[in-house]
Amino acid sequence: MRACVLTATGDTDNLKLEQRPDLHAGPGEAVVRINAAALNHRDVWIRKGQYAGIKVPIVLGSDGAGMVSEIGDGVDASWAGRDVVIDPSLGWGADDRAQGPAFNILGLPHDGTYAEMVTVPAANLHPKPQHLSWEEAAALPLASVTAYRAVVTRARVQPGEVVLVTGIGGGVATTALLIAKQLGARVYVTSGSDAKIQKAEALGASGGVNHRKDDWPKTLIALIGTRPDVVIDSAGGETFNKALDVLKPGGRLASYGATTGAVHNLEVRRIFWKQLSILGSTMGTPDDFAAMLELYETTKLRPVIDRVFPLEQAGDAHIRMEAGDQFGKIILKM
Amino acid sequence: MRACVLTATGDTDNLKLEQRPDLHAGPGEAVVRINAAALNHRDVWIRKGQYAGIKVPIVLGSDGAGMVSEIGDGVDASWAGRDVVIDPSLGWGADDRAQGPAFNILGLPHDGTYAEMVTVPAANLHPKPQHLSWEEAAALPLASVTAYRAVVTRARVQPGEVVLVTGIGGGVATTALLIAKQLGARVYVTSGSDAKIQKAEALGASGGVNHRKDDWPKTLIALIGTRPDVVIDSAGGETFNKALDVLKPGGRLASYGATTGAVHNLEVRRIFWKQLSILGSTMGTPDDFAAMLELYETTKLRPVIDRVFPLEQAGDAHIRMEAGDQFGKIILKM
Repeated sequence: MRACVLTATGDTDNLKLEQRPDLHAGPGEAVVRINAAALNHRDVWIRKGQYAGIKVPIVLGSDGAGMVSEIGDGVDASWAGRDVVIDPSLGWGADDRAQGPAFNILGLPHDGTYAEMVTVPAANLHPKPQHLSWEEAAALPLASVTAYRAVVTRARVQPGEVVLVTGIGGGVATTALLIAKQLGARVYVTSGSDAKIQKAEALGASGGVNHRKDDWPKTLIALIGTRPDVVIDSAGGETFNKALDVLKPGGRLASYGATTGAVHNLEVRRIFWKQLSILGSTMGTPDDFAAMLELYETTKLRPVIDRVFPLEQAGDAHIRMEAGDQFGKIILKM
Repeated sequence: MRACVLTATGDTDNLKLEQRPDLHAGPGEAVVRINAAALNHRDVWIRKGQYAGIKVPIVLGSDGAGMVSEIGDGVDASWAGRDVVIDPSLGWGADDRAQGPAFNILGLPHDGTYAEMVTVPAANLHPKPQHLSWEEAAALPLASVTAYRAVVTRARVQPGEVVLVTGIGGGVATTALLIAKQLGARVYVTSGSDAKIQKAEALGASGGVNHRKDDWPKTLIALIGTRPDVVIDSAGGETFNKALDVLKPGGRLASYGATTGAVHNLEVRRIFWKQLSILGSTMGTPDDFAAMLELYETTKLRPVIDRVFPLEQAGDAHIRMEAGDQFGKIILKM
């Protein structure tokens, strides 16, 4: 099989297309012949050496969709030949509230989906939603389960609520917008790019503010006519503080990342006096993953695709993600 | 009637015992003849001018218990002559999640309980738990409703969970210990005083660590043999960060104060990767207050009294609170 292998941390030249032996399924495992994979920021951070526990060579990639081509001992025979998407959360553990010590994400340390084949536990197989293309199905796993857990399981967004998604454009933020909208919320966004705000509006956002402009919380409150009930944030840093400032009393902040780092001066008084809830969230349980797929199935929701690259251009796909110009998921086609 | 009046912000000499006209009940109101009142830190902060919206002269005091001596038009006649404790939350509003814009606490701007009489809305009257003395009943309102909301309504402490109460000694922290213990949790404490840790153990705490010693989270984890499920904190600052560090993955921090100020460097990564919930809490709804009293009634729980002063020694009571040596509530007896 062909696989895109990270041979050493560094620039995109280290992503090399190799011919490797076909994979086989051990007990309880399945081999999935991948039709499409998708990128996540995690892949770029690993490639650049900015992640814990890196080992090389490694086949990157957490997101994949394809057909089950081989099943190991003990796996239900009905999986053979089925079209599937893969849950990339491996070894979550017994506690729904948080992943356990054995938790890891497909694509490190286990070889991932930037390849024509991947081996995964059969428990991580899920039927592919039939209304989605292979590219769309591959766009779901990591971003959609992360967005689902943040918006539904943690923030429990309700119909009619006002939701702010900060930093629209990436896979999770875009999916959070779609899911919150699907739940009946009124969704607003922030971005450093007016073009991305317009794209978000085309997807159903009620409006947005450019966070590079001064005093965006004030502009946002004027735009909405009220304060948000919920903020979905992965920026951290100063955005985190502004989110606490902009929230309605009793509001909720679901935090699933900190791309801009720590918060330099957190006003605890704001948290208790406004009775805010800050809800940390990362990835999702097997139940979150199944519920996310069911939401796509029942509502015929489709993820947003930014661009599709052939596997051999994985490096170019990384460059696009690093530039930060994408809106939606960046896909690799086998 | 006699009232202890704050005539100007400043030192305790500004708390002056005055003879004032007896109070009367307007429509929907009741006059309560106070038998005992209790101090809260809020009273000291107001006296020293460290609070928003101060006006003088003012009768301080949020906590009081006594007998209904007069009822106004529209008040259920059965309240007349009853022994009551007063809910000090005035005008909470319609949203259980947070107090509304009309919210205020008895004792500023409305004259409070450092007096032989106070006028309150009849909706704020609650029958005094019969097993409690007047001093004990007066010890409940602000501290117990704050502790109840933080421990029960917000953190939802479950039987068998491990709860850490930071800064044991004050009224809320001591009550949080009692309530969490009553719910079936295993409770640990921190304090800067070994004597207070011993007193907490006498009240049912399983142990405690001195937060003035280095690396208390490590000492605590060794002492417990695991990490806490829940932290109840009003210190803020560096304690807040250490609480996030010490919590179990999926754990909850109920934050009801920030006596040591803002957090200088909040690691957002810790919040989302550990899937923590930070739950701001202040005071409580009318339902929280009623549920708190019911807990005292059904379990025959008693609050911890530090010391009882006569009303005319309110200044000495303030000095004791400022010194921070108390363990439990400081009471004024009329």
